[in-house]
Amino acid sequence: MVTYMEKVIEFMHRFLEDESEFTDEELDLYKIALTHSTYGSQGNQRLAFLGDAVLKQIIREHLYLKNPYDCKGILTMASSRIESNNNYSKIAINLNVFNYMRVGNPALKSHNITANAEALEALFGAVYLTKGLQTAKRLAEKYILNNNL
Amino acid sequence: MVTYMEKVIEFMHRFLEDESEFTDEELDLYKIALTHSTYGSQGNQRLAFLGDAVLKQIIREHLYLKNPYDCKGILTMASSRIESNNNYSKIAINLNVFNYMRVGNPALKSHNITANAEALEALFGAVYLTKGLQTAKRLAEKYILNNNL
Repeated sequence: MVTYMEKVIEFMHRFLEDESEFTDEELDLYKIALTHSTYGSQGNQRLAFLGDAVLKQIIREHLYLKNPYDCKGILTMASSRIESNNNYSKIAINLNVFNYMRVGNPALKSHNITANAEALEALFGAVYLTKGLQTAKRLAEKYILNNNL
Repeated sequence: MVTYMEKVIEFMHRFLEDESEFTDEELDLYKIALTHSTYGSQGNQRLAFLGDAVLKQIIREHLYLKNPYDCKGILTMASSRIESNNNYSKIAINLNVFNYMRVGNPALKSHNITANAEALEALFGAVYLTKGLQTAKRLAEKYILNNNL
């Protein structure tokens, strides 16, 4: 029988592309990132609040540097499309995130847009706090930017 | 007669609390950060696009870490208040930013909220690109967070 912690470790090894051992603090944050707000307490909501901004900064820096002649309006349109819940949700569904989440409401569907988008944001919040901005950038390049530009 | 570049250097030395010499690349970015969109080309708009997100991440990380028991709703309200154009504009006016700006439209008032807020964002975009996230954090602590929490 696979424990929930083993599922979290399996997912995070794949997501981070890093098979090294995690500290207890790292695992606690990853578990929270994969916990829906219906499970109890507030789940991944605080981490999603942080990760939303981490992703916004990474995406905007990427667009700013890659498109030196685009005006603010064009850059804003591009970033809004990439940062949308719809887009984040598609990426989370591709990563099969929901299958690794703790969810309190059994009626919540595995393709729920908000739950998937918030989990992706929360994962980036947790990665930023545990591994730093450079790792968050590398993963954003891989999962978000290369698929959208 | 003080040249415009000397004014930019004077402002940036004070803003960064750093009297060291700037590279040409740094000075170019600082000049753009202090250029209103009415002056020609698009002025500081692209840097404001970036700096807006840099500040959002710094503010959210600060709120997340300092308030471990606040829910997402409370954190979001706090960050929205700090990130508002009104607040950024007040901070820019306190720093007398407008006096160091190149502005094309002579009717633009020195207390214009959008012009001041965007200049502050653009300055943080330029600081992030030239000095890195840690310096941007230190300056945000000084000018934005300590005045608002």
